[in-house]
Amino acid sequence: MKLLILNPNTSEDVTKMVEDAAAIAAAPDTEFVVRTAKWGLPYIATRAEATIAGHVILEMLAEEHADFDAGIIAAFGDPGLGGARELFDIPIIGISEAAMLTACMLGRRFSIITFSPALQPWYEECIASHGLSGRCASIRALDDPFSSVGNVQLEKEELLLRLANLAITEDGADVVIPAGTPLSGLARRLRDRIDVPVVDLIGSSVKQAELLVALKHRKALQGTFRRPAAKSSVGLSKRLAARFEHKDDGD
Amino acid sequence: MKLLILNPNTSEDVTKMVEDAAAIAAAPDTEFVVRTAKWGLPYIATRAEATIAGHVILEMLAEEHADFDAGIIAAFGDPGLGGARELFDIPIIGISEAAMLTACMLGRRFSIITFSPALQPWYEECIASHGLSGRCASIRALDDPFSSVGNVQLEKEELLLRLANLAITEDGADVVIPAGTPLSGLARRLRDRIDVPVVDLIGSSVKQAELLVALKHRKALQGTFRRPAAKSSVGLSKRLAARFEHKDDGD
Amino acid sequence: MKLLILNPNTSEDVTKMVEDAAAIAAAPDTEFVVRTAKWGLPYIATRAEATIAGHVILEMLAEEHADFDAGIIAAFGDPGLGGARELFDIPIIGISEAAMLTACMLGRRFSIITFSPALQPWYEECIASHGLSGRCASIRALDDPFSSVGNVQLEKEELLLRLANLAITEDGADVVIPAGTPLSGLARRLRDRIDVPVVDLIGSSVKQAELLVALKHRKALQGTFRRPAAKSSVGLSKRLAARFEHKDDGD
Amino acid sequence: MKLLILNPNTSEDVTKMVEDAAAIAAAPDTEFVVRTAKWGLPYIATRAEATIAGHVILEMLAEEHADFDAGIIAAFGDPGLGGARELFDIPIIGISEAAMLTACMLGRRFSIITFSPALQPWYEECIASHGLSGRCASIRALDDPFSSVGNVQLEKEELLLRLANLAITEDGADVVIPAGTPLSGLARRLRDRIDVPVVDLIGSSVKQAELLVALKHRKALQGTFRRPAAKSSVGLSKRLAARFEHKDDGD
Amino acid sequence: MKLLILNPNTSEDVTKMVEDAAAIAAAPDTEFVVRTAKWGLPYIATRAEATIAGHVILEMLAEEHADFDAGIIAAFGDPGLGGARELFDIPIIGISEAAMLTACMLGRRFSIITFSPALQPWYEECIASHGLSGRCASIRALDDPFSSVGNVQLEKEELLLRLANLAITEDGADVVIPAGTPLSGLARRLRDRIDVPVVDLIGSSVKQAELLVALKHRKALQGTFRRPAAKSSVGLSKRLAARFEHKDDGD
Amino acid sequence: MKLLILNPNTSEDVTKMVEDAAAIAAAPDTEFVVRTAKWGLPYIATRAEATIAGHVILEMLAEEHADFDAGIIAAFGDPGLGGARELFDIPIIGISEAAMLTACMLGRRFSIITFSPALQPWYEECIASHGLSGRCASIRALDDPFSSVGNVQLEKEELLLRLANLAITEDGADVVIPAGTPLSGLARRLRDRIDVPVVDLIGSSVKQAELLVALKHRKALQGTFRRPAAKSSVGLSKRLAARFEHKDDGD
Repeated sequence: MKLLILNPNTSEDVTKMVEDAAAIAAAPDTEFVVRTAKWGLPYIATRAEATIAGHVILEMLAEEHADFDAGIIAAFGDPGLGGARELFDIPIIGISEAAMLTACMLGRRFSIITFSPALQPWYEECIASHGLSGRCASIRALDDPFSSVGNVQLEKEELLLRLANLAITEDGADVVIPAGTPLSGLARRLRDRIDVPVVDLIGSSVKQAELLVALKHRKALQGTFRRPAAKSSVGLSKRLAARFEHKDDGD
Repeated sequence: MKLLILNPNTSEDVTKMVEDAAAIAAAPDTEFVVRTAKWGLPYIATRAEATIAGHVILEMLAEEHADFDAGIIAAFGDPGLGGARELFDIPIIGISEAAMLTACMLGRRFSIITFSPALQPWYEECIASHGLSGRCASIRALDDPFSSVGNVQLEKEELLLRLANLAITEDGADVVIPAGTPLSGLARRLRDRIDVPVVDLIGSSVKQAELLVALKHRKALQGTFRRPAAKSSVGLSKRLAARFEHKDDGD
Repeated sequence: MKLLILNPNTSEDVTKMVEDAAAIAAAPDTEFVVRTAKWGLPYIATRAEATIAGHVILEMLAEEHADFDAGIIAAFGDPGLGGARELFDIPIIGISEAAMLTACMLGRRFSIITFSPALQPWYEECIASHGLSGRCASIRALDDPFSSVGNVQLEKEELLLRLANLAITEDGADVVIPAGTPLSGLARRLRDRIDVPVVDLIGSSVKQAELLVALKHRKALQGTFRRPAAKSSVGLSKRLAARFEHKDDGD
Repeated sequence: MKLLILNPNTSEDVTKMVEDAAAIAAAPDTEFVVRTAKWGLPYIATRAEATIAGHVILEMLAEEHADFDAGIIAAFGDPGLGGARELFDIPIIGISEAAMLTACMLGRRFSIITFSPALQPWYEECIASHGLSGRCASIRALDDPFSSVGNVQLEKEELLLRLANLAITEDGADVVIPAGTPLSGLARRLRDRIDVPVVDLIGSSVKQAELLVALKHRKALQGTFRRPAAKSSVGLSKRLAARFEHKDDGD
Repeated sequence: MKLLILNPNTSEDVTKMVEDAAAIAAAPDTEFVVRTAKWGLPYIATRAEATIAGHVILEMLAEEHADFDAGIIAAFGDPGLGGARELFDIPIIGISEAAMLTACMLGRRFSIITFSPALQPWYEECIASHGLSGRCASIRALDDPFSSVGNVQLEKEELLLRLANLAITEDGADVVIPAGTPLSGLARRLRDRIDVPVVDLIGSSVKQAELLVALKHRKALQGTFRRPAAKSSVGLSKRLAARFEHKDDGD
Repeated sequence: MKLLILNPNTSEDVTKMVEDAAAIAAAPDTEFVVRTAKWGLPYIATRAEATIAGHVILEMLAEEHADFDAGIIAAFGDPGLGGARELFDIPIIGISEAAMLTACMLGRRFSIITFSPALQPWYEECIASHGLSGRCASIRALDDPFSSVGNVQLEKEELLLRLANLAITEDGADVVIPAGTPLSGLARRLRDRIDVPVVDLIGSSVKQAELLVALKHRKALQGTFRRPAAKSSVGLSKRLAARFEHKDDGD
């Protein structure tokens, strides 16, 4: 099984963290690659940036989807998820959704802990769009400057731990989800110091992707994720244009 | 007052319809221009297409926002709305939101009538994202091939009228909203044959834009629509990159 | 265009404040009058008082609606709104609804700040009845005696400012709405000291009324705001009785 | 125990039906009187009429509350209920609320059957205001002219029975509530021909009133139903004015 | 009228408290017995324990239902309620539901106060399952060791009073409900020291049971509480097996 | 990895179907056993029967949990799930939850198709208890007698297929879930004749169990699924009593 993991940010150090977390989670017979966006923003914190990332994701998938069994959008907020599920035939996983659905089996309510308050509004809309607001106890964010997004989880480890524990005692969290991708791997490192299950974004996403591949569901021919009717376009990458126009391989 | 109306589709004939509808609604001292997307899809019916349109909208706004008092995103579904409100200082109107909020003052529940079932999932998510699902009686779509999107409202006028009346008698609609932009102007033509208020997307949006400009609210410095922190980028249009990096005029 | 603004309280000083706020907002070609209730309570803080105000509003509208293009119910809580929309042919604006819908275009969540905790339960029910509870971050009220309702906004300006800022930092408000009518005009005075948009009740209502008049929707002949069937009555004012009985001018 | 049952309509024949239904339900040691409104409308079908009825109810209660142990507002829609609970010290029952809460102990979802579609919007808002929309399977109304409101339940008995059975088989109703007061007593007559519990508005209200009297809860001194602060007024009935001004007996 | 009150715990001292509270509430012509579970747990605080209690309740009802007019499940959380309503012909009351529905007539929102945080998750699910989460202001629990469940209300009276008052001032409670059965009778003792109505679980349940018996609704033949089709079983008590198999008296 | 799959029914033929479906889904290194309940009902269709099944499940888990890495409750409705998650240290999967969460990654809304209308109320409550009602398009049930629960999927295959297709075209289902266990394996057989993904209860549950085992989350020490405090009991199986009393192996 081959998984295509997409980092819609241009930051290679985030890609490296995603790779490490995926390597730990992947089953022995699962191959995966992690791609870094060739254009866009260094990381995504707001709706404006997620808007760009959505386009980036569709282009990245158009480029390579045919060679993989499933795709994983590796940014909390799941930019481009709905469109990707319409446009492509392989299962597409959003790491927010995968982590939250996993958390649903571990507790009544999960809390999100993250490293910047700038992320909160977008995360909140993401959770609502998945219909899971009722399962979310809180989003707690550090409000503290950090030196680099690639190092924030180490630099702020103790503060993030404190947020997690406040989420449990003050907000009633049964599960903690460290988000977004710059906190990849933190779940593993903190789990012995947190009294409830801690769900890793990348780990749970790799496993949910393996699950969907194994279960071999068909691509929808009807319903909200059926493929859009063929349309010509202007200014899109060659492969994305071909995908929209139903002129790529496999049609 | 100057309004920038953005058609995120590449179809000039839709732009023309939007222009006609805006001309009827605009106050005497309101100037407006309608721009057609230079790249993207000919029209937007699905999440995949709306994902592209979101990026298109941000670029169109980056290009011209400084010369206008407000922007209007002229596609039902409001692609790019949240990001645009973060990124730019002028009021941004989404035509779905403007029409639905207007409808809220005219009845308990509105129905959306539209020309293709392909639009339904995206419309439904749009309504939910505005928190207005409880005010929506139904979305009713024709399921009938049409010759061209620029002509669909004339070609299918009687069928669309029938949908509107079914929405009233079967679904309990107090207000009818014909959507999306290819139905611009239909509200005016059908209103005498429909027993409840019919809200025009473009007309209500132009008036809501005028309202927001007149009320002169400040751009948020806090909260979910504050401007994102400066970020460098790769591959964006020059002006959009400058806007993300806080290096455009006015910073 | 002529607007009838109804103060359902018997307090002339509140009427004066409404007049001032309306004058600032009204377009050059908009005429308006503000009427004070001839009977009822000096101001409305509870459901019991709003119950009386509902009747007052219907009588005030019955008296003068025929001479105006739209009516505005100038009390937060919108007493009599639904009944007025059924009974009369002109657009009727409730200032709570108009302000909240305006706020929806400016942020995800608004907070209400007000001058007495007595108002809170009724405000909360008003927000819920408009289906906007999910858009309301909080209602914050001063809990401090004040000398007169006509002077409360000046006397408590600093405390109200503090409430507004707490709503932003503690409750996540993207927009602040000072309510009810005794705070008319406060929005304008405080807006430079509050980091998010501040919506004025009367200002936004006058503009939404102008918008509805301009858009010329028909009076509903079906649906929940169609006119009630003719009924005789006992003990109502002559004109209201005639309106209920379909015996007033215009039938 | 003495119950004051208030018919906010001016129709004596409805009062008579309420009396008959109350007599069957009342416990041996429960005395009750049913009063007819001295002013207002002959019956209430819309929000406009309910607005008047709210005022009527407050006046009726102001007149006589001191001589009774509880009050019952005998109109589906519960006009004036919130205000009455604030203003008076005795328990106040709304017949919609009492019937719906009783139905909650008998099934997951109840359906309302009624005699005119004009009632539907107001009923729907009433159910929502009690937070019980999720427990309501449907509102089904006859759409058939009837000769008199005092005779509608006899004239349309078979059609109403059919509505009830459709509510069960089509809408999934576990309980049926015939509403409003002109259907008083119908529950008893139809119950053997309907396969689920049928709740009588007046019967369940009399019993819930007896229950509240027996349980002897205190009048709230805090919270949303505490008594409003004293206010002078203009144009109200002498006793209602005194009640608002805290100048009636018992203060 | 004869009521069967079921304590699904094995603690006789809780049974005694229930008996005392029921004796005060019961009408002169109401007879009642309170039974203690013969097997199960000493008290119920979690879902695991409620799971056992559900089975216990069905067996207790199977044993004696034929001799009574209604059954009351005397444990907050209402274990076995839905199944009991399906299986038996007499009205079944859950004390959580009865208390909360009673509270709905006394205020907009009630708060639950209880003696251990262990109860909170189960209580929260109970409230949600009744569709009443929107009416619940808060659940507040002591977090303090206590010597015995039979004595906790006396030992912690002042702390519980403090919780009640915090629920009013901090959470906006209009009504307070002390839960579960080990707090039976506390409502009566504290009511003069709490500014809002305090609802007693057992008192309100006895009265709601009397109400349902008096109203004489039929057992549902359709809908979600109709009796399950006959099934054989293994390992159930003789009478419960007979009830499931439709082989008990009365079939 | 060893999975304990629990059929809370006494029907061996259902166990056999579960075994077949699990065998197809299980990874090469996953061992599993399927146990049949030693007592209880032959199959579960109502809340009453699910109440018994909850107890059965706790006893089955108490007996064997120590030898397995995860447990699967193989009855739609997930009887005993919450209690099991509290009481035991291994991950517990409910097949309804696992299938619905899987479906969430495949579409906006799923429909449940099943073989008897008796199952509908319990299924509906199960979906609501998981907070997923908003993701459920419909529950459609055959209303047709069948010869045996062990054979119903073959006997009614064409009718069930028709239900699935109606769910797609009439109810807007993006995903179809055949439920409960007597339809195990039907998903696989029908998937080529249904235009949207069809999720198998047992298949998706086995994979979600493998996922949870692989991700190695800790047992909650706080929050709603922490282990209940030790309690003695009467009349429970030896091992379940020991588990409740914290006297089993591993304490």
